[in-house]
Amino acid sequence: MLPEPVQSLINELKRLPGVGEKTATRYVMHMMAQAGSRLTDLAGALVKVSQEVRSCAVCGFLAAGERCRICADPMRDVATVCVVEGIGDLMAIERVSEYRGLYHVLGGSISVLRGITPDKLRIRELEARVAAGGIREVIVATSADAEGETTALYVRKILERHSIRVTRPATGIPMGSSLEYLDSMTLMRAMRGRKDL
Amino acid sequence: MLPEPVQSLINELKRLPGVGEKTATRYVMHMMAQAGSRLTDLAGALVKVSQEVRSCAVCGFLAAGERCRICADPMRDVATVCVVEGIGDLMAIERVSEYRGLYHVLGGSISVLRGITPDKLRIRELEARVAAGGIREVIVATSADAEGETTALYVRKILERHSIRVTRPATGIPMGSSLEYLDSMTLMRAMRGRKDL
Repeated sequence: MLPEPVQSLINELKRLPGVGEKTATRYVMHMMAQAGSRLTDLAGALVKVSQEVRSCAVCGFLAAGERCRICADPMRDVATVCVVEGIGDLMAIERVSEYRGLYHVLGGSISVLRGITPDKLRIRELEARVAAGGIREVIVATSADAEGETTALYVRKILERHSIRVTRPATGIPMGSSLEYLDSMTLMRAMRGRKDL
Repeated sequence: MLPEPVQSLINELKRLPGVGEKTATRYVMHMMAQAGSRLTDLAGALVKVSQEVRSCAVCGFLAAGERCRICADPMRDVATVCVVEGIGDLMAIERVSEYRGLYHVLGGSISVLRGITPDKLRIRELEARVAAGGIREVIVATSADAEGETTALYVRKILERHSIRVTRPATGIPMGSSLEYLDSMTLMRAMRGRKDL
């Protein structure tokens, strides 16, 4: 019923996470109802990103030039590197604005099931950064699940030969939660990791 | 923190209905994580729509050429025209695949509050279609709210001078609903419009 270009656009939008036929159609109808340039404005923004944005050569975060804003910031502490699985994790840590060091994006976590072996992650680049000197601590902030833990252990092993501190963020009871409904694994970790009050 | 082109793209996506910073960021990250061409594919689809799709010269629905698929379909009943407020209403009726006539999209409903006077809707075009002859019935399927009712009455008045049938879809109890929770207006209308069993 819809013209072919409109249906193609809907199909393209349906590839976005959580977007189905209905939402995609709603997006298209909304854009077409607006004065002229909405469609081309969005198209322009997409092309600009595809042309100008790439991975930071140092950390793997998004960058408009050679290096990302974080690596290019002279105020950051270059002696500390936080290793994360993805860009979303990096952005979550940045949102807290507590951490002032640099990052290293692995691009995933080691997973035998999904065929992601260590060589498919940016682990070699991490070792090269450490080997180049100047880094005193690497915080391995991979997820607190089986794959994230495996990846963290692997990274620690790789960095063993360099005399630097390798740390991992604390695991335990998340703020605001009641013990009653907490899973046993989290509770066990929290009890083992108890601290003097 | 993000490169400027990425932030611009997020801002552009935030104009879509129901999309905030978080969803827009998720969309962008998802597209950038895919192999290369996802961003440009979407951009291309957007440009194609903006270049090739316009309003059907006859009914106001979306069309890739001069006329839309419905108006160009020789199997449709050209003697019946269903008047709707928007493209979404037209698509809802088409989805039922019960109606086989043509359409006329008004582009809204008369609203004193929002400053939408009859001359801002495609009512003149409707009268011209009727005046051209060949139409026997106009079904005014505007919304069943105050503005839709006003618009329907106005359309009926305009078409009075032409000797055609002007109808309106039935109002009453929607299928599957219990009388107990129905609003009084709907129930009143349903009682008044009762039919022999």
